[in-house]
Amino acid sequence: MPQAFRVVFAVYPGVTQLDFTAPHEVLSRLPGAQCILASTTGGSITAEGGLRFAGVERLGDVAVCDLLCVPGGPGTAEAMGDAEFLAQLRRLSGSARYLTSVCTGSLLLGAAGLLQGRRAACHWAWRDRLAAFGAQPDAARVVRDGHLYTGGGVTAGIDLALSVIAEVAGPSCAQQVQLAIEYAPQPAFDCGRPEDAAPAVLAAVNSRIDSVRPAREEAIRAAAARLRLAR
Amino acid sequence: MPQAFRVVFAVYPGVTQLDFTAPHEVLSRLPGAQCILASTTGGSITAEGGLRFAGVERLGDVAVCDLLCVPGGPGTAEAMGDAEFLAQLRRLSGSARYLTSVCTGSLLLGAAGLLQGRRAACHWAWRDRLAAFGAQPDAARVVRDGHLYTGGGVTAGIDLALSVIAEVAGPSCAQQVQLAIEYAPQPAFDCGRPEDAAPAVLAAVNSRIDSVRPAREEAIRAAAARLRLAR
Repeated sequence: MPQAFRVVFAVYPGVTQLDFTAPHEVLSRLPGAQCILASTTGGSITAEGGLRFAGVERLGDVAVCDLLCVPGGPGTAEAMGDAEFLAQLRRLSGSARYLTSVCTGSLLLGAAGLLQGRRAACHWAWRDRLAAFGAQPDAARVVRDGHLYTGGGVTAGIDLALSVIAEVAGPSCAQQVQLAIEYAPQPAFDCGRPEDAAPAVLAAVNSRIDSVRPAREEAIRAAAARLRLAR
Repeated sequence: MPQAFRVVFAVYPGVTQLDFTAPHEVLSRLPGAQCILASTTGGSITAEGGLRFAGVERLGDVAVCDLLCVPGGPGTAEAMGDAEFLAQLRRLSGSARYLTSVCTGSLLLGAAGLLQGRRAACHWAWRDRLAAFGAQPDAARVVRDGHLYTGGGVTAGIDLALSVIAEVAGPSCAQQVQLAIEYAPQPAFDCGRPEDAAPAVLAAVNSRIDSVRPAREEAIRAAAARLRLAR
């Protein structure tokens, strides 16, 4: 393991904060880890739900990283249209030993042209749309394809980050972090995946997702079209 | 359910961010929820691990709340000595329909005198110290005692917040949130509790905790002594 392990979370307005705060909590416990947030403009970022993060660096100022993590969230639709953001993901992926995403962050990796022919995870409601970027959707909670680690929706970021630590620093280190954050989950219900949820629960969540669907579908179409032109 | 459900996360420098970012992600999805961070001085807060949060309100400016949540972290030792912080917890607990904590946040509730004779959870490494504040340590991941909900270490905040939503808005609402955040955890290892971890893993984590133990033990002793004087 190198002395410093530079982790960059690429964030944007309307990001789902738990998509990166959970992996940040886990990865910041890796000995030697240096975790930063970086966005297109730097400064501060307001996440979905209202949390405000300060001290965000500018992606263009980050020379290299060991791990790049791209979280998801309702802001992905706008981020897919941010050419500078996508260009910086492409540039930083060149130095990253580990390229990672959580939730709909994989759509952003896809829009950046980084998932062509790769297996990838995504939030269950958007997983199929990875195909628009030439990726193979995979329903596993954490999908590893070479140096690419992608996670399912939101909370999958905890499992993803622990998997990365096991790979980078060994299982004992990952187990120490898991014990330190008392990760022995006891979900109140068995409904975290659509196939396990009651039909009415699934319908209610889908109906809420439907309200953001047109804008995101349009963003996916436009990003996929730009990608074809860029090739 | 009321139109607005005001949630206050009482934060301080050196807080463990996942202790409150995880419940924030969950509770902000409760219809009508208004979630804010508040600290003694307001402004911004740097958490353990380096994340910086802006737009933090002053606890003294928060008139009332429906739910008060106190996260834990290495900063608890200093926070236990912050008389204003503890006084604000006491004041806000008067209006809170739900008084909650995650991880070593229960030590802060204890230091504020709010756990006398109550059953409470805490991070496994500090659970026994709840007795210094007259509380009965309970090893469950989420402990409910009347309107008091306390969680175990760090990641227990997800389970705690979902339990609160089930109580406030019913099981269907909690299930919708659980599905939306794809909370179907698959921990890489079965070692999230000390009784399940390998002895070498437990020893390594305990040895890291030993480095903060003297300062925190002293803070607990001092806070418990002040509490006896205040009674």
